[in-house]
Amino acid sequence: MASCWERIAALQESNASRLCVGLDADPDKYPAGLKGKPESTLEFNKGIIDSTLDVVCAYKPNAAFYEAMGEAGLRALKETIAYIGGRAPVILDVKRGDIGNTASRYAAAAFEDLGADAVTLSPYMGFDSVEPFMKYEGRGIFLLCLTSNRGSRDFQLYHEGDPLYTRVARKAVEWDEGRGQLGLVVGATQDELIGHVRALSAELPFLLPGIGAQGGAIESVNAAEVSGGGLGVVVNASRGVIYAGSGQNWREEVRRAAKELKESI
Amino acid sequence: MASCWERIAALQESNASRLCVGLDADPDKYPAGLKGKPESTLEFNKGIIDSTLDVVCAYKPNAAFYEAMGEAGLRALKETIAYIGGRAPVILDVKRGDIGNTASRYAAAAFEDLGADAVTLSPYMGFDSVEPFMKYEGRGIFLLCLTSNRGSRDFQLYHEGDPLYTRVARKAVEWDEGRGQLGLVVGATQDELIGHVRALSAELPFLLPGIGAQGGAIESVNAAEVSGGGLGVVVNASRGVIYAGSGQNWREEVRRAAKELKESI
Repeated sequence: MASCWERIAALQESNASRLCVGLDADPDKYPAGLKGKPESTLEFNKGIIDSTLDVVCAYKPNAAFYEAMGEAGLRALKETIAYIGGRAPVILDVKRGDIGNTASRYAAAAFEDLGADAVTLSPYMGFDSVEPFMKYEGRGIFLLCLTSNRGSRDFQLYHEGDPLYTRVARKAVEWDEGRGQLGLVVGATQDELIGHVRALSAELPFLLPGIGAQGGAIESVNAAEVSGGGLGVVVNASRGVIYAGSGQNWREEVRRAAKELKESI
Repeated sequence: MASCWERIAALQESNASRLCVGLDADPDKYPAGLKGKPESTLEFNKGIIDSTLDVVCAYKPNAAFYEAMGEAGLRALKETIAYIGGRAPVILDVKRGDIGNTASRYAAAAFEDLGADAVTLSPYMGFDSVEPFMKYEGRGIFLLCLTSNRGSRDFQLYHEGDPLYTRVARKAVEWDEGRGQLGLVVGATQDELIGHVRALSAELPFLLPGIGAQGGAIESVNAAEVSGGGLGVVVNASRGVIYAGSGQNWREEVRRAAKELKESI
C-alpha cells in the first residue's frame, strides 16, 4: 500500500492542491439547522467532506474538539474518519507525547482504533515518545517544531543563536533517516523563520497551520516549499473554511472558500 | 471549595501518604478473571480504588490507556473518576498542549466532561496552551519539566549550562504568580537534577513519576521536598502497584504493595 506521504502527494497532484481542511468541530459555529447540536457533528463533517473532496490533499480533525463532546464526540470522530474511507489521508491532530510504554497506547488509539493515516506529536519527551508511532509502517508523523501561536516564543525560540526549534528540526531528520515517516509542523505565521527550518530539513514534509484565522500569510508557503518536487508542504486551514457559510447554502460557501484558498496557495 | 492542591495536602496529612496510584488500565495485565477483558476496566479500577483509598493522596489515570480502548475506554475513564467521587483528587495524565482556541476544548474535556481535578500538560507550545486550563479556579496543572524517560535528554537537557527544563521551571513560577495552580512533572529517575529544579521553583508542587518499573530511587523524593510544609511532592507509581497481584487475592496484594511503597517514601 502507498504510504501516507505518497497518498498526500498523489492528491496534491490530481487535485492540484496543497490545501488540508481542518475538521475542528465546534457545534456553536455550525450553520443553520445544525448549530448548537453536538449530535449533528457527523452530518456537518459529511457536508464539509462532500463539498471539498476534489479540492484538498488531506483532512485534519483536531481531537480536542471531539474530546470536549465526550463519548459521542469520539464516536463522531471515528465515524468521520470512516466516512472519508481512504478517499483522502487523515492527519489526526493530537499533539501527544509520553513515555514509550504509554505512547504505544496513543499510537494504537490513533492508528488502530480511529484509523488515522498520520498524527501530530509533541517532541518534548524525545525519541521514545515518537518511536512507537514509527512502528506503523507507512503512517506519517508531523512533529511540532515552530508553531503558529504567540506561546511559540516561550520555549521554541529559547536560546538565541541555536534555539530549540532548530534542534527539533535536526533531530527529526536524524530519526527519520530517510524512512519517509516524519514531518514538521511549522506555523504559517513564522514568516522569517520558515526558510531557516527548511534549510535544516531539506526533504521533510511540512504541515503549515495558521493561514487565515491566525493571520499567517500565503507568502509563507513559498518559503516552506522543497525544491525538486515531493510532498513539500501541506497547508492547513480550519475555521476560515469550514465556517465560511452559516445559511442554508453553507456547503457551497465552504466549497467556494476552500477553492479560493487552494488557488491562492 | 478547597483547591486541588489543598485537597491533596489534606490527604497527605490524614493518610500520611505522598503516594499517588497511577490507573494505567491495560487489560492484558489484569488479574485472573478480568485479564484480557477491556469491559472489566471499571471493575478493575474499583478494586484498586477500594483497596487503596486510605493509602493514597491522589489517583492518576493516564488517558492513553483508555483511548486505546475506544469509546468504551472513555466511558470507563469517566465512570472511574465518578466512582472516586471526590474522595481523592484525580490527576488526569493527558500531557496535552495546543493553541489557546484548541486548549480550551481540551480543558473542557478534562475538567467539565471527565471531571478531573488536575491535569498534566506539555509546555512546548507556551503560555497560551496552558492559560485556558488556569481559568478553572482551584484546578491543578502539572507541567512536564524533566521527565523520567531516556528521551528527556533529547530536548529537555538541550543547551549545557542553561537547559530547557530550567526555562520551564522558571516560567512555571512566573505564570503561577502564587495562584497555586501550577506544578511540575519531575522524573524520579533524574536523581542529580531534581535538587536543581527544586532550587528554581521553591514552592511548586512536584509530581514524581518513575518510581518502581522505571527504576527511580526512593531517595529522589527527598531532593524534591519543599522545606516548611505545603504540598511538596506527589510520588506516582503505576505498574508496580496496580499489577502487584494476579491471582484471586489481587486486591490484597495491591493494597500491600501500595502500603509498602507509601511507608518507604
